[in-house]
Amino acid sequence: MTSYAAPIRDMQFVLHDVLQLSKYSNLPGFADASPDVIDAILEEGGKLAANVLHPLNQSGDQEGCRRESDGSVKTPKGFKEAYDAYAQGGWQGLSADPDYGGQGLPYVLAIAVGEMVSAANMAFGMYPGLARGAADTIYAHGTDEQKKTWLPKLISGEWGGTMNLTEPHCGTDLGLLRTKAVPQPDGSYKISGQKIFISAGEHDLTENIVHLVLARIEGAPEGTKGISLFIVPKFLAKEDGSLGERNGVVCGKIEEKMGIHANSTCVMDYDEATGYLLGEENKGLRAMFTMMNEARIGVGLQGLAVSEVAYQNAAAYAKDRLQGRALTGPAAPDKPADPIIVHPDVRRMLLDHRAFNEGARALMYWSALHGDLAHRSEDAEERQKADDFLGLMTPVLKAYFTEKGYWHATNAQQVLGGHGYIQEWGMEQFVRDARIAMIYEGANGIQALDLVGRKLARDGGRAVQAWFAELDQFVKDNRGDDLKPFIDGLANVKADLAEATQWLAMNGMKDPNNAGAGSMDYLHLFALTGLAYAWAMLAKAAIEKKKAGEADEFHERKLTTGRYFLARVLPDAKAHLAKLKSGAEPVMALPAEAF
Amino acid sequence: MTSYAAPIRDMQFVLHDVLQLSKYSNLPGFADASPDVIDAILEEGGKLAANVLHPLNQSGDQEGCRRESDGSVKTPKGFKEAYDAYAQGGWQGLSADPDYGGQGLPYVLAIAVGEMVSAANMAFGMYPGLARGAADTIYAHGTDEQKKTWLPKLISGEWGGTMNLTEPHCGTDLGLLRTKAVPQPDGSYKISGQKIFISAGEHDLTENIVHLVLARIEGAPEGTKGISLFIVPKFLAKEDGSLGERNGVVCGKIEEKMGIHANSTCVMDYDEATGYLLGEENKGLRAMFTMMNEARIGVGLQGLAVSEVAYQNAAAYAKDRLQGRALTGPAAPDKPADPIIVHPDVRRMLLDHRAFNEGARALMYWSALHGDLAHRSEDAEERQKADDFLGLMTPVLKAYFTEKGYWHATNAQQVLGGHGYIQEWGMEQFVRDARIAMIYEGANGIQALDLVGRKLARDGGRAVQAWFAELDQFVKDNRGDDLKPFIDGLANVKADLAEATQWLAMNGMKDPNNAGAGSMDYLHLFALTGLAYAWAMLAKAAIEKKKAGEADEFHERKLTTGRYFLARVLPDAKAHLAKLKSGAEPVMALPAEAF
Repeated sequence: MTSYAAPIRDMQFVLHDVLQLSKYSNLPGFADASPDVIDAILEEGGKLAANVLHPLNQSGDQEGCRRESDGSVKTPKGFKEAYDAYAQGGWQGLSADPDYGGQGLPYVLAIAVGEMVSAANMAFGMYPGLARGAADTIYAHGTDEQKKTWLPKLISGEWGGTMNLTEPHCGTDLGLLRTKAVPQPDGSYKISGQKIFISAGEHDLTENIVHLVLARIEGAPEGTKGISLFIVPKFLAKEDGSLGERNGVVCGKIEEKMGIHANSTCVMDYDEATGYLLGEENKGLRAMFTMMNEARIGVGLQGLAVSEVAYQNAAAYAKDRLQGRALTGPAAPDKPADPIIVHPDVRRMLLDHRAFNEGARALMYWSALHGDLAHRSEDAEERQKADDFLGLMTPVLKAYFTEKGYWHATNAQQVLGGHGYIQEWGMEQFVRDARIAMIYEGANGIQALDLVGRKLARDGGRAVQAWFAELDQFVKDNRGDDLKPFIDGLANVKADLAEATQWLAMNGMKDPNNAGAGSMDYLHLFALTGLAYAWAMLAKAAIEKKKAGEADEFHERKLTTGRYFLARVLPDAKAHLAKLKSGAEPVMALPAEAF
Repeated sequence: MTSYAAPIRDMQFVLHDVLQLSKYSNLPGFADASPDVIDAILEEGGKLAANVLHPLNQSGDQEGCRRESDGSVKTPKGFKEAYDAYAQGGWQGLSADPDYGGQGLPYVLAIAVGEMVSAANMAFGMYPGLARGAADTIYAHGTDEQKKTWLPKLISGEWGGTMNLTEPHCGTDLGLLRTKAVPQPDGSYKISGQKIFISAGEHDLTENIVHLVLARIEGAPEGTKGISLFIVPKFLAKEDGSLGERNGVVCGKIEEKMGIHANSTCVMDYDEATGYLLGEENKGLRAMFTMMNEARIGVGLQGLAVSEVAYQNAAAYAKDRLQGRALTGPAAPDKPADPIIVHPDVRRMLLDHRAFNEGARALMYWSALHGDLAHRSEDAEERQKADDFLGLMTPVLKAYFTEKGYWHATNAQQVLGGHGYIQEWGMEQFVRDARIAMIYEGANGIQALDLVGRKLARDGGRAVQAWFAELDQFVKDNRGDDLKPFIDGLANVKADLAEATQWLAMNGMKDPNNAGAGSMDYLHLFALTGLAYAWAMLAKAAIEKKKAGEADEFHERKLTTGRYFLARVLPDAKAHLAKLKSGAEPVMALPAEAF
């Protein structure tokens, strides 16, 4: 009953007019991404999402994955065919290195396509998403031989991939993990142990699955300093790249869970499975963070994606459903009632979504462009600055976007009233699916701690200082009547964020719990500042279109939605600042046993 | 895997020390409710909730209700036995009129027991809850004969009850309803039509079900002015009270929905079913509002209840789960990691819940006591003032409490990380169950509109003015060092609320969309003021215990949690005020077709 249409015009506006990708044609792969190529890719991606992936979203949820007694897992009807269409369309390698079969197009473009895939079918999108993460990790940390063995098939989509971190007794605290690796004379390892919550751990979409597994080499130090990362394929690979022996890894169980039923969440049992060390011994966590950081951005993207698809369906319902009359008198006097879009509180919910979706899309793509710069720029300083920014923004994108995704899916359901609670309408699935994104790849509280505990302080605060300078410069360069409300909004929230940052610097040293207690409010304030920046950039681009005589109602509506953001979203900033500045005491005063 | 223990000490503190029920012994039924009787009832209710109802919560969710081909509905295993225990224990008639078999005890006590029932098993609690609503409506609007026929069995729990409002094309806008009633020569009516989303519409817990049904008498005016209310039993009642003929009402379908699987949500088909007019012809909505208002309080109570049970389970997990180390250094150095309760952000979530649960309980019981005063006081002015307050607070209790219930269930799930997403841990059920409470009995947006559009303005603003005067008096009477932070917090948020009220009075006239656009923020501000008042009362009672030398750590912790409320919850007030004062423009500017 739900539908999805990729918001192509919005995406184009961000890519062409806000980010102005054509300015970056000096970067490898960007010259190939001419505006018409980008448009064609968005168009085709939108068709795949709307016509192939979304029609399987509700049926996939209802059918779910099934584990057979031999440990194999069957994905829902239609998933295999859809996956083949996805792989054969070359979508998996869109931004991957051409040396290994990728198309080498910008990462930011892959992010736009990824938004479509996740919006259309979040559970589906996780299969290729995890494979891409595995490929990127091997690309960053693998030997030439490992790259040659594993990358082409991961990038073509012929093989899947996973990340294996969590064990029953440890999720967040990986230092506790027990899976062991025993060195073999041939340089490989025998991996034994149990991993849980492994998304896409076993399925029938690909002939092979390349697991990246954290384990402890026999005799390695305890804690996080003794963890190594291994490539553990379901089937070993022969010299010629064809499938070899079945390896000692099997799916022991799939979890019954709240949502993403069409993605198999597996308990994976490793029993002397052959594994290959990826990167350095005992440096597995660092290597895994390559995968994790990218995965975190992907999860933030899921938040945006579900917010968008839920919005589209709620907006369609609100324009269609007749119920009650406008407070100002009948809007459709010829009908028995007005469509509920006349009601301010229904609009409030939809505009909350919309102001987020559009601002968040700009911020997400802006951040992804920094991913391109960090990897592809020839200028070392530019690479470093871009990497700093992306590192800083990653926990914000992950935590804030997933919280909003969930909350907006909830409000979109609310627009449908009782119908929103009934399975057949499909709205409640968005909520159940969106829920996981706040948890996996590091629960949102961990993201907040990553932001205040690591990212802020790293390199003497270089990243945050550079970003603040960029914001100040933008404010200075764009003062003037046209953008005034947007610039004022940005300057004010940035001042609040600077005050909060200062407060953390002063008080976090004295008592780290001051930083911990304020971490989530700080992250929200950070996100609001990022969104205010994104909205100022969107508004600037819209106004420039108007000045150039190239604007239409699209640009006017962009400015209208931006003003909603300023009036109705930004006021939360002060509340976050006040809570943060109340410090650790209110949070820590109650003794643990009193809970 | 989940557990529930009724928070009896908290309930006692509110009933005995904050509300001081013993002061109201002049009210009918209150003299019987001596402190030891209250304690005994809470104790027994807690046992029923923990030992009988809660063990069926997860199994009931997993099994769900099943409709047989003959239209009968089977509730999950154990529900019938649990219901019999509930009915035979006399719980259904706790506060009902002794003339019809009730125990006549205070309504506020029934609310405390209701909290336990809903917390232990929300889906179960809806069956007796709806029957009580039906009984109260017949009690308020029925003829003596109707009362004699229907009340004793509803109050004993032998018969169930429902409310039938919604039709496929109308939920909120009841003026559109089409179910028709044709007068018969014997004074009864033949009812025909279809009702949807009927909670507890059909089940096997009771031998009969008394449906209250809104329908339009043939020839009645269109819209809400032509709606009447009917008693339509599943089985007709014979003169002697025994079961007569099966009536023409049948469950056509049960809905597949997100949660409350153990409650049957029915499509009810009425085919010339015999019905009896309840109250006056064409005044059905007024009569239904008796039921609805009580039901709305019951739904708000579900929000508190689920917040409490989710909190208990998350807190237990947080004290048990070892993961990572405290930011200030190991708290349990002898263990491989610290329990996650050491982390400020975990505490933040739990304290958000706790500050709400304790404040909300006081506000809910305080409001329920006004229900007792409104019905039982001998003083007409006191009755009116109490009724005003309850009317004003009802939409706030319904909407704010259910939003918090849902959000806290979500955060409680978050505390468990990935385990929270897995069915067997039971946390995700709390979220799915809690979700409906924001929708049914009038979606929360409708509550906000009821508050600003009806309750504020009614009788020239008498209710809100009286409450503001009460708050001002309380502030004045309790200035002084002991309570200072609580009094300051209350005075400040009340000033914000007064400013918002003033703004609505000035601008809502000019453009009703100003009121609509700010309605939800106003409701939140109202709730924060109510909670600040509740916390001031709680703190006052705790300090009085300390002064009397009767305090222990319970009272100290109460004050600690209250200070958390002041520092970390109240700051949202200003954001709500700012959003409200931005008015209709940001919300209404976008044309409908742009959504």
